[in-house]
Amino acid sequence: MRNILIIGAGRSATSLIQYLLNKSQSEDLFITIGDLSLENAQKFTQGHSNAKGIELDVFNEAARKKAIGEADLVISMLPARFHMEAAKDCLALGKHMVTASYISKEMQALDEEAKSKGLVFMNEIGLDPGIDHMSAMQVIDGIKEQGGNIILFESFTGGLIARESDDNLWHYKFTWNPRNVVLAGQGGAAEFIQEGSYKYIPYHRLFRRTEYLDIEGHGRFEAYANRNSLKYQSIYGLDDVLTLYRGTMRRVGFSKAWNMFVQLGMTDDTYALKNSENLTYREFVNLFLTYSHTDSVELKMRYALKIDQDDLMWYKLLELDLFNNEKTIGIKNATPAQALQKILMDKWSLKPEDKDMIVMYHKFGYELNGEKKQIDSNMVLIGKDQTYTAMAATVGLPVAMAALKILNKEIITPGVQLPIKKEVYEPILKELREYGVTFKEHHVPYLGYNAIGGVNG
Amino acid sequence: MRNILIIGAGRSATSLIQYLLNKSQSEDLFITIGDLSLENAQKFTQGHSNAKGIELDVFNEAARKKAIGEADLVISMLPARFHMEAAKDCLALGKHMVTASYISKEMQALDEEAKSKGLVFMNEIGLDPGIDHMSAMQVIDGIKEQGGNIILFESFTGGLIARESDDNLWHYKFTWNPRNVVLAGQGGAAEFIQEGSYKYIPYHRLFRRTEYLDIEGHGRFEAYANRNSLKYQSIYGLDDVLTLYRGTMRRVGFSKAWNMFVQLGMTDDTYALKNSENLTYREFVNLFLTYSHTDSVELKMRYALKIDQDDLMWYKLLELDLFNNEKTIGIKNATPAQALQKILMDKWSLKPEDKDMIVMYHKFGYELNGEKKQIDSNMVLIGKDQTYTAMAATVGLPVAMAALKILNKEIITPGVQLPIKKEVYEPILKELREYGVTFKEHHVPYLGYNAIGGVNG
Repeated sequence: MRNILIIGAGRSATSLIQYLLNKSQSEDLFITIGDLSLENAQKFTQGHSNAKGIELDVFNEAARKKAIGEADLVISMLPARFHMEAAKDCLALGKHMVTASYISKEMQALDEEAKSKGLVFMNEIGLDPGIDHMSAMQVIDGIKEQGGNIILFESFTGGLIARESDDNLWHYKFTWNPRNVVLAGQGGAAEFIQEGSYKYIPYHRLFRRTEYLDIEGHGRFEAYANRNSLKYQSIYGLDDVLTLYRGTMRRVGFSKAWNMFVQLGMTDDTYALKNSENLTYREFVNLFLTYSHTDSVELKMRYALKIDQDDLMWYKLLELDLFNNEKTIGIKNATPAQALQKILMDKWSLKPEDKDMIVMYHKFGYELNGEKKQIDSNMVLIGKDQTYTAMAATVGLPVAMAALKILNKEIITPGVQLPIKKEVYEPILKELREYGVTFKEHHVPYLGYNAIGGVNG
Repeated sequence: MRNILIIGAGRSATSLIQYLLNKSQSEDLFITIGDLSLENAQKFTQGHSNAKGIELDVFNEAARKKAIGEADLVISMLPARFHMEAAKDCLALGKHMVTASYISKEMQALDEEAKSKGLVFMNEIGLDPGIDHMSAMQVIDGIKEQGGNIILFESFTGGLIARESDDNLWHYKFTWNPRNVVLAGQGGAAEFIQEGSYKYIPYHRLFRRTEYLDIEGHGRFEAYANRNSLKYQSIYGLDDVLTLYRGTMRRVGFSKAWNMFVQLGMTDDTYALKNSENLTYREFVNLFLTYSHTDSVELKMRYALKIDQDDLMWYKLLELDLFNNEKTIGIKNATPAQALQKILMDKWSLKPEDKDMIVMYHKFGYELNGEKKQIDSNMVLIGKDQTYTAMAATVGLPVAMAALKILNKEIITPGVQLPIKKEVYEPILKELREYGVTFKEHHVPYLGYNAIGGVNG
């Protein structure tokens, strides 16, 4: 029997664990689920005979080493900053490791030793990062094999609400960590390349520089730029590319409305508001508007943001109950971002029957035999329910598949990896199709980057 | 003879040194000027018999201790972060110290020991901080002595170009450190109180939330909020104040135009631009605009910032030669802020005959015998020339006066101080009047904070 230790049993682990339990008999697997909460860990085993739940605090060295020592492979589903304790033990005890997180500097530093010991440390194999890498590299490698030269790569991902559960003016609910949504785009200018020109967008303009993306059968989306599109340029082998852009997808109108919060300063997470606990929603809004003895918060808000009488943006604010003078923030020393998150969670939390949706959209521009061509590729996955969400499937299934393929020696390249090798992406993308994770490719005319005016975009 | 050591002989030290040299005979002073450059230090002595210049590196412990050991009082005109070496020696060797810088935590930590040794460590006694403290506290104490209760305090300072030397559309030139001007307002939201309400302005809105200030004979100014207006609330004894606001003064129209740079992201100092050295001014601008094959940088700029055909803002940009495609930034790994500074320095540097101007404006609202009253107080000083600037006078003269009054035991309260005590501000403000630093007080109707609409502001 091969032993897999999964550390951290959270919302994103449901599909991962289900996949491994389903394969446990045929593949001769025993699954140990370690979590801070024994009850939680045991619940995830579903009483399966090939699984057990244990209480595990990753900072308890003895317990961690014991659990890792008994495993053949360790999956860490903890937040990225907690991977390193387990990673070092895996290295010392000779165990493979899989995570869905970005490779940190600390993780990268283990590469040489992992290689020398023949251990696979597979990272960035969730959704984004993960499925984005694999689906992009499959097309990029395909174009290169034909002799094509990639000149444009744009890639967009969104975690959204399924259309059947979309019942608010923002066309958005929190299907994932709300804090990450509120803070999205902060921390520095977005940097990318368009037709050979470097471009930079400061945070306070980010949500007004969107572009549209259409997916057949699913309607129109918009996307705003991620902070660092250039990170994967050399990893993907795109050093000569003219356009390189990565973004986040939302339903049309979200970004322009979200920009209202950015403009007012409500997404700032760097300072605490005075008396935040007792602020009403209305008082919170008023903190960011000029003082007046007589004028209403509503009119000051319309004036500050130039919101016309009949602008739908206004009704998006009303829908959030933003001007309510009885509901209070109720959080001590809250930053503006924390207060805003509280207000949004009242309205953007999922109802029991709500389903989530994952969308991904790639554009590949290339030259082949002197001709410019373009492939657009997209994937849409709707969640089953609130346990088996599209997010949990797209994050967890690639992790589980990679783990099994490492144990089965189908994935063998040792060292600190991300899934950009054919050895990894071919079998995993193929298997993901069985679970509905399907990319549709469309050959479209090459337009280059679409800008405001001009015949060529 | 009393020995004064001045560390750092820069542009802001001219009036300071001149004052002390002028008094050196009558007051029995010997002035030692220590600078990294011996030549510079000697130049500042003007060959005066009661002065000498020495080479002094504040990080050379032996040289520093020797120089401080020979002095009765040390004036540090170095940047604030370099004060501590000298301060610790002053404490150990029993010397008084004077600086024009904000009291750092490290400096504050010396308070108790300075007190126990009877040493005066006077700080924040330049212009802003300095003359602002003194002129405000004089009025505040006066109102309190009459039995008045302060309900509003607003304070504004600006380092500008004299009207006779004002020959550009921005009505601005660099009369002080250009880098500080480019970075002004960054680092967090501006925080203040208006009529009892806390208010916060994020950086990207700062330059659009200005208010106007009129000074008789000098025309209209505007002001944007400083980052932390609340810092002096308890120091000034204004715990019950309803409005507390500190700001920076510019000529009307500057802030709205400066906001163009902020909006585009050109004032960002947190990342380096690719290939910055070879970027033309035009290419620099284009980094922050959408890509187009065909549209001009000019039209994209007008579109991005919504600049109408006949808007003066446009001509402010043209005046800076911002669309020039031959002039290059010429700085390796420049941040956007450094690149912008380079462009501005071409146009905003002083001509030989230019004169600077310091403006300060305070508003004091108070209740006395059940009546609400207001005093507005302002000061304008025009520089003599580019050696004896208004900036050098207003920064250096209070420092020099404080130094002499400490030696003459007119200022005696020991410890780490700022000039908010009558013992300090009364004699210094009186003497400053001889040098043209004169506050004009006007009793005006109390209006409270002036907001957009509403009968009461």
